[in-house]
Amino acid sequence: MDTIEAPARLVDHHCHGVARHALTEARFASYLTESDAPAAPGTTFFDTQLGFALRRWCPPALGLPAHCPAADYLARRTELGTDETTRRLLRATGITDLLVDTGLSGGLTTPARLATVSGARAHEIVRLETLAEAAADAAGSAQELVTLLASGVHDAAGTAIAFKSVIGYRHGLDFAPEPPTDQEVRRAADRWLAGRRPGGRLTDPVLLRHLLWTAVATGRPLQFHTGFGDPDLRLHRCDPLLLTDFLRAVRPTGCPVVLLHTYPYHRNAAYLSHAYAHVHTDIGLAVPHVGARALDVLAETLELAPFGKLMFSSDAYGLPELYLTATRLFGRALGRLLSGWVDDGAWTAGDARRVADLIASGNARRVYGLEPAGA
Amino acid sequence: MDTIEAPARLVDHHCHGVARHALTEARFASYLTESDAPAAPGTTFFDTQLGFALRRWCPPALGLPAHCPAADYLARRTELGTDETTRRLLRATGITDLLVDTGLSGGLTTPARLATVSGARAHEIVRLETLAEAAADAAGSAQELVTLLASGVHDAAGTAIAFKSVIGYRHGLDFAPEPPTDQEVRRAADRWLAGRRPGGRLTDPVLLRHLLWTAVATGRPLQFHTGFGDPDLRLHRCDPLLLTDFLRAVRPTGCPVVLLHTYPYHRNAAYLSHAYAHVHTDIGLAVPHVGARALDVLAETLELAPFGKLMFSSDAYGLPELYLTATRLFGRALGRLLSGWVDDGAWTAGDARRVADLIASGNARRVYGLEPAGA
Amino acid sequence: MDTIEAPARLVDHHCHGVARHALTEARFASYLTESDAPAAPGTTFFDTQLGFALRRWCPPALGLPAHCPAADYLARRTELGTDETTRRLLRATGITDLLVDTGLSGGLTTPARLATVSGARAHEIVRLETLAEAAADAAGSAQELVTLLASGVHDAAGTAIAFKSVIGYRHGLDFAPEPPTDQEVRRAADRWLAGRRPGGRLTDPVLLRHLLWTAVATGRPLQFHTGFGDPDLRLHRCDPLLLTDFLRAVRPTGCPVVLLHTYPYHRNAAYLSHAYAHVHTDIGLAVPHVGARALDVLAETLELAPFGKLMFSSDAYGLPELYLTATRLFGRALGRLLSGWVDDGAWTAGDARRVADLIASGNARRVYGLEPAGA
Repeated sequence: MDTIEAPARLVDHHCHGVARHALTEARFASYLTESDAPAAPGTTFFDTQLGFALRRWCPPALGLPAHCPAADYLARRTELGTDETTRRLLRATGITDLLVDTGLSGGLTTPARLATVSGARAHEIVRLETLAEAAADAAGSAQELVTLLASGVHDAAGTAIAFKSVIGYRHGLDFAPEPPTDQEVRRAADRWLAGRRPGGRLTDPVLLRHLLWTAVATGRPLQFHTGFGDPDLRLHRCDPLLLTDFLRAVRPTGCPVVLLHTYPYHRNAAYLSHAYAHVHTDIGLAVPHVGARALDVLAETLELAPFGKLMFSSDAYGLPELYLTATRLFGRALGRLLSGWVDDGAWTAGDARRVADLIASGNARRVYGLEPAGA
Repeated sequence: MDTIEAPARLVDHHCHGVARHALTEARFASYLTESDAPAAPGTTFFDTQLGFALRRWCPPALGLPAHCPAADYLARRTELGTDETTRRLLRATGITDLLVDTGLSGGLTTPARLATVSGARAHEIVRLETLAEAAADAAGSAQELVTLLASGVHDAAGTAIAFKSVIGYRHGLDFAPEPPTDQEVRRAADRWLAGRRPGGRLTDPVLLRHLLWTAVATGRPLQFHTGFGDPDLRLHRCDPLLLTDFLRAVRPTGCPVVLLHTYPYHRNAAYLSHAYAHVHTDIGLAVPHVGARALDVLAETLELAPFGKLMFSSDAYGLPELYLTATRLFGRALGRLLSGWVDDGAWTAGDARRVADLIASGNARRVYGLEPAGA
Repeated sequence: MDTIEAPARLVDHHCHGVARHALTEARFASYLTESDAPAAPGTTFFDTQLGFALRRWCPPALGLPAHCPAADYLARRTELGTDETTRRLLRATGITDLLVDTGLSGGLTTPARLATVSGARAHEIVRLETLAEAAADAAGSAQELVTLLASGVHDAAGTAIAFKSVIGYRHGLDFAPEPPTDQEVRRAADRWLAGRRPGGRLTDPVLLRHLLWTAVATGRPLQFHTGFGDPDLRLHRCDPLLLTDFLRAVRPTGCPVVLLHTYPYHRNAAYLSHAYAHVHTDIGLAVPHVGARALDVLAETLELAPFGKLMFSSDAYGLPELYLTATRLFGRALGRLLSGWVDDGAWTAGDARRVADLIASGNARRVYGLEPAGA
């Protein structure tokens, strides 16, 4: 038995809805990878750290032995149905609060539904680019668009727990750090609307930056996608260090900034959370994808990250299995890593338990202003 | 004993010939480093991870105790002679197939000779820049050079198992991703021939890119030097992520791309092999050079790399010792890493054995279309 | 007990003075971080790897139990007084030689005072930018400034053990590699003096480069800040690989170059020390800050760094506690790492002891021309 146990309760400060309907095997497998194409001939997405970790941790929640073949697991899933499968998996996680990015479309459960199914509290994170695209669909003119962006962000700040930006995907994190001028914003809005079809994506860096600064002004925590993701991004342009000048510019406002995912730049992100009081960091998405290596990635993050600056997230999306896999991997990695330091005499058990609770839930409660669990 | 043993048979999908003649101590030592100059005063290239690993694994193959002094080892090497030394070391490796880059000059054994000595099958990898330099030596005009490049690559595709590019050395991986136009190619060929002496190296980025796209059109797997190497390269311009836009451009052709070496960017390369179905990765060259740390570098690679996408190579060059050192380090690291995961309950033993075989040989057989061992 | 013990004696080849006067708790805590601002609300700089490591290793030197609360430790510090606290902590380190960067101001002890208190020999490292700023304070014209820079560097080379550059902070390591012309230097001196108030910092890249090349000409070892540090730098512009072309340009002079700190780019720095005979590397500053993870960072460095190229430093600054914490963490990490390789049969115990002594002191003695300990 480990000296320090995995935390029993977690706040998941960045996640997504899960599929509402039954999934084919191909669709299920597509959620196991960040690739946007079928697996290479002769290979399968189950032959990955995530595939193996899912087969370890999820079958027991559905009454099957760990590591059963994928086909048996999928058959059992079908037998139980989507709702019961989702309920069992989510209820096994120990998550008390879900901060749900609602910016993805595609038949996913709402935060309210996630709350009902999981028994956790759910809070909405508003994705800035999705908000802007909805505004563009509604706006009749550039001036109207600018007005809708302002009111949209203002209104969202009243209900959402945080904002999220995917400027890393849409442009790269190497954007100009200062706010654009009003004139630049109006011109960019004109250009965008002129060339846009309904539903068209926002990639204009002026408008992306304008959204960031509009969100910063509300003081709500601002999450950034950084590090790896699907092939829509160029990874070397998602190094969180590219945000350095923006972080310096935001610093006087006091607005909290949260660097999501961060892998393989998690040491760089940890440095930023060390150097800047308003910056926090995370290894969500990485944890389920690196599977048996979660402890090592966590350990690298805990080199420079102050213990009050790292938070747990799953970045689960589509499959409820990703929630359970992420929480099991993270909790176990955290417990074991700290146990090793305690057993070695490097840390006290009391300090280790306190730090485990900060990372699992305490830091997120403080940064996002959440009520205590069970309150 | 480890739960999962080192694989008994390996495909070495990227290696080079070994010296045909007896070596002085200084020449032997020069093969232990990527430096191109003598060791710093007061230091020796034997005082490296590679030096220590070689002293551990090679003396027993020549009938000496592991870790014997370098002088004893070199004396025994002289006593046995180059041919017998090479035979003993290569036959101890367990390699069944050698994919030999023949693009380096300097008194090295041919693939045929390597096959005879080792008892393995040998296949040729054609280095694009070497092919182009031979064409330039033969061409009387730019037009003739362009014709010779086309026919050279076409002919090579009929006999070679793969192509290799060292554009990382000659220019950097930050090249324009699209194919150059015919006019650009002709002009570049003119410029090169006009300024070139016989034997002159190709560094023109237009011609380097033209070679890449000519090779892609054949559909043979295309290997890239990425990551560290000798001081002729600038390491930060050899990050495989700089290939991202080129990989996207190649994707529709289906041509397999193989990222060689990759260290210290092996996590970045693993990401590319995760995100793109046609991309494969490797930690050759790194494994012998990091010695006792091979398990850790392998483990980092196996975070994001799908298990069907990583292949073994030695990148051995000059010394047959590098073949044996690389295979022993890699096989042992792989066996131990997977044993740890099995013993921890994270993987099953059956999955681990299957993955070990994929990485040691199965993936390379599939990617390069090799026959099964013993066939 | 470990097979290989921590080295009993160390050369600290890069460190700073410690505070001469009593410290408030807030001031003490400010030395535990590279941040330049108070800790985030609800957090403390004691909740870091450095904070925990300090609480482990320093209380026993002051007669308290390891891991006692910070408040108890600070009270004991006050009780003993600054001088006695400093004496006890420094004398427990095992350091025989201190190479002290005197370029920081702010009530710090001189090298002579450090020597008296610690019982070690102290040597001065002259910071080029501090020398230039003093010259600018004294110069009445650009011509005089140029003359003072030349004489200042020449004179310092007669007494200092090494030079140090913080061009990484002042500009970034992505500077033009060649020396500026005399005319460029005069113009830059003119510009700087025209716009400068007394005490103004040097950030002009032409003058920063001129200082580097003036120092190189003396042949004294030249240290560079690389890698992480306080928020005054942009970390991605402090990757030591950005020095590649400068290192190539310096190579013919034979002037030793030492890459300091290097984290999180320590593998990149290790590569440079592998590829270039005149380049040496270090993980000072990182070791105390990563605390319980020191072994892992050291291990990554010892992948490509030849064993004659890595040196110990603390980069201690302000607190004598940082000296003791850095030496305990480094010595123990080195002993344990090498013990693991010996116990595994990868290294012999004799080789391991020899390498431990090289890294702890032998390499620094050779590079800086220090006399043997006890001489």
